[in-house]
Amino acid sequence: MTEPHDAVEVIIAKRGGDPLTDSQIDWVVDAYTRGVVRDEQMSALAMAILLNGMSRHEISRWTDAMISSGERMDLSAISRPTADKHSTGGVGDKITLPLAPLVAACGVAVPQLSGRGLGHTGGTLDKLEAIPGWRAAISNEEFHAQLESVGAVICAAGAGLAPADKKLYALRDVTGTVEAIPLIASSIMSKKIAEGSGALVLDVKVGTGAFMKDLAKARELAETMVALGTDAGTNTVALLTDMSTPLGLTAGNALEVTESVEVLAGGGPADVVELTLALAREMLAGAGKSDVDPAEVLASGAAMDAWKAMIAAQGGDPDATLPVARENHVVTAPADGVLTRLDAMAVGLAAWRLGAGRAALGDPVQAGAGVVWHARPGDTVTAGQPLMTLHTDEPERFERALAALDGGYDVSPAGTPYEATPLIIDRISAG
Amino acid sequence: MTEPHDAVEVIIAKRGGDPLTDSQIDWVVDAYTRGVVRDEQMSALAMAILLNGMSRHEISRWTDAMISSGERMDLSAISRPTADKHSTGGVGDKITLPLAPLVAACGVAVPQLSGRGLGHTGGTLDKLEAIPGWRAAISNEEFHAQLESVGAVICAAGAGLAPADKKLYALRDVTGTVEAIPLIASSIMSKKIAEGSGALVLDVKVGTGAFMKDLAKARELAETMVALGTDAGTNTVALLTDMSTPLGLTAGNALEVTESVEVLAGGGPADVVELTLALAREMLAGAGKSDVDPAEVLASGAAMDAWKAMIAAQGGDPDATLPVARENHVVTAPADGVLTRLDAMAVGLAAWRLGAGRAALGDPVQAGAGVVWHARPGDTVTAGQPLMTLHTDEPERFERALAALDGGYDVSPAGTPYEATPLIIDRISAG
Repeated sequence: MTEPHDAVEVIIAKRGGDPLTDSQIDWVVDAYTRGVVRDEQMSALAMAILLNGMSRHEISRWTDAMISSGERMDLSAISRPTADKHSTGGVGDKITLPLAPLVAACGVAVPQLSGRGLGHTGGTLDKLEAIPGWRAAISNEEFHAQLESVGAVICAAGAGLAPADKKLYALRDVTGTVEAIPLIASSIMSKKIAEGSGALVLDVKVGTGAFMKDLAKARELAETMVALGTDAGTNTVALLTDMSTPLGLTAGNALEVTESVEVLAGGGPADVVELTLALAREMLAGAGKSDVDPAEVLASGAAMDAWKAMIAAQGGDPDATLPVARENHVVTAPADGVLTRLDAMAVGLAAWRLGAGRAALGDPVQAGAGVVWHARPGDTVTAGQPLMTLHTDEPERFERALAALDGGYDVSPAGTPYEATPLIIDRISAG
Repeated sequence: MTEPHDAVEVIIAKRGGDPLTDSQIDWVVDAYTRGVVRDEQMSALAMAILLNGMSRHEISRWTDAMISSGERMDLSAISRPTADKHSTGGVGDKITLPLAPLVAACGVAVPQLSGRGLGHTGGTLDKLEAIPGWRAAISNEEFHAQLESVGAVICAAGAGLAPADKKLYALRDVTGTVEAIPLIASSIMSKKIAEGSGALVLDVKVGTGAFMKDLAKARELAETMVALGTDAGTNTVALLTDMSTPLGLTAGNALEVTESVEVLAGGGPADVVELTLALAREMLAGAGKSDVDPAEVLASGAAMDAWKAMIAAQGGDPDATLPVARENHVVTAPADGVLTRLDAMAVGLAAWRLGAGRAALGDPVQAGAGVVWHARPGDTVTAGQPLMTLHTDEPERFERALAALDGGYDVSPAGTPYEATPLIIDRISAG
């Protein structure tokens, strides 16, 4: 077969700052998936894209080419409107757990294909796997049946969606080309668009514990993804939300399930409730159901019913006792005063090192490991009171977890002014 | 073994515009040679270097690391001073052939490790292999013995010099990262410095037939290489020379040997003589022999004697009849007037397509193929006079060679002012 383009030609165009043509983009993504464009060629192209950028049109075409490398899900047989959420990843970010059943209870189906955690941010599937019996892998038939009957599915994405992205993501990870906004945006959106839901809400995290540390970059990523979703005919909005401090009061798999169930039961930390409701309102609006108030539905107990049905449908026991770590260690406040800072990255690293996360795909995680913090920024503390409790099955992990927390929080003298960062920083919509 | 660095760390530093540390450079070149840094990582780094550049110190360290990846030749046992020449490659550039024996006849030993041609520029070894019996591959012992007895050796470089460069060059060729001045300069200079001669003269070509089309880029490359040579303790100068029109009157293997022998016999085209003498003077000056006048030595016949000894020492018959192509085709002047342009790239491509060059390493070349031009820019021509003669063993090659020449020369009305480009544009020395 004669190839219409040549990898070096495409690389040299982008290297020189030229926009790639539609034909070059279609070819290079397809040829990379087929192995005709080699890893060392794609990594040079990825670096040129990182340094020279891509136009909105190029990113859109690139995303389409990634979608075309695999299957597209067809949700047209689902009787309800559909809406999906994606978070760029944060510490203590368990929002998907209460959000999916809540939105389902509001009458919108939520097909939530999720991943496992890598590094300092946890993975939704890892959290749910803390529930005895729960299975992440379900068949396509089970997926559609559960989406119709329960209205919410959180499960592992099959290998069929955007295989080009899977290959490219693994390459970017080892070649220093992860941080290219066109490639981040097209990676996320190719999978989300291929999932086929009618509405999509993006939770783009900003701050020390987020992938994007910087507001301008996070905004650029959010705007790029909203444009891509809109171009593909998906109702897409993004919230820019704070990740300088972790969400809620827990980071860890079973710990976060427990906290999510508290939210579904009408309690839970205020920030988790606030963000869950904000994202639910966006999903409902995107699916044409802005008349439904998710706060009322949450208060009614219907979201908890949907949660139990969703967990049970995938083999889990929603009433089972969750695993608890064998060992714990309490960190106390060093002085009287105000907790003025609790760094999301420090807490995320500590939870990871305690065994809640993994360093490489395929590593096991501990269901019970993690961090619980007993004060949030702005809270008054007294010397010696418990500030955090660390949980793990392996006490030799405490030392490195404590090292991660060292310098990760500040207790300032009483009366030090503290100004809270707003949780929801901005909302990005099309046009 | 624990590695002191990580490929992604080094890539991200250069991607962000930071200078690489000595330790990062030493490690990444060595680890790439060992296969620990993978091709897809090195190509991303090469693209970041191409787009973000390198300081003089970084290039110097990178060159040292490439040299350290292999052997260094030791010429200290040679009784005469040594000098070497490198050309960045041009059309009709046969200068090494008369130059090496001329400089040897002046009392300076010339250890000239050369390559084969690829693309539109010929290779010195391909030219000499047109001489019946001549061998490019000689042993290390033969090399030293011939350098001592004859004073000049032109032979193939062994695999032991700068193996990192060999691997990196092959990678850059397929990843659109050839045109990075730090990488071009370190590639050339790592091999030349490892060869160990005391003086080095660089002939950096500029113009349509050259690798560098643009004077500013050629000057940057020349300055970078002179700085590298100087840093390594080699007396290095560069001449920037014109390659908008081809050198001499021939492009092709046996054709260029014949022209070189004409120069050694005291004749030959004026430009070939001029450049040979200019480069000889630089080599002699670099080797501390500026008192010797190479023009006198050329006129004395001593250079021809050295040529015959050099060819004979490698098995060649200097008096043998050279191969002649089986077919030829004459291109005539389309009108009376002045030849105002003869494009080096057009002639180089034509010679390549006639069989004088190769498309891939390992392809055979035709000894007799090539182009002879009967007028040079500035010459008056009359309609119908032979302008060029094309030579090949395979007449089916004429059509594509003629297509390469189409638009490659201009015959302007008599009286059109013609201003010759100077052959030697500038001289770059250290400091």
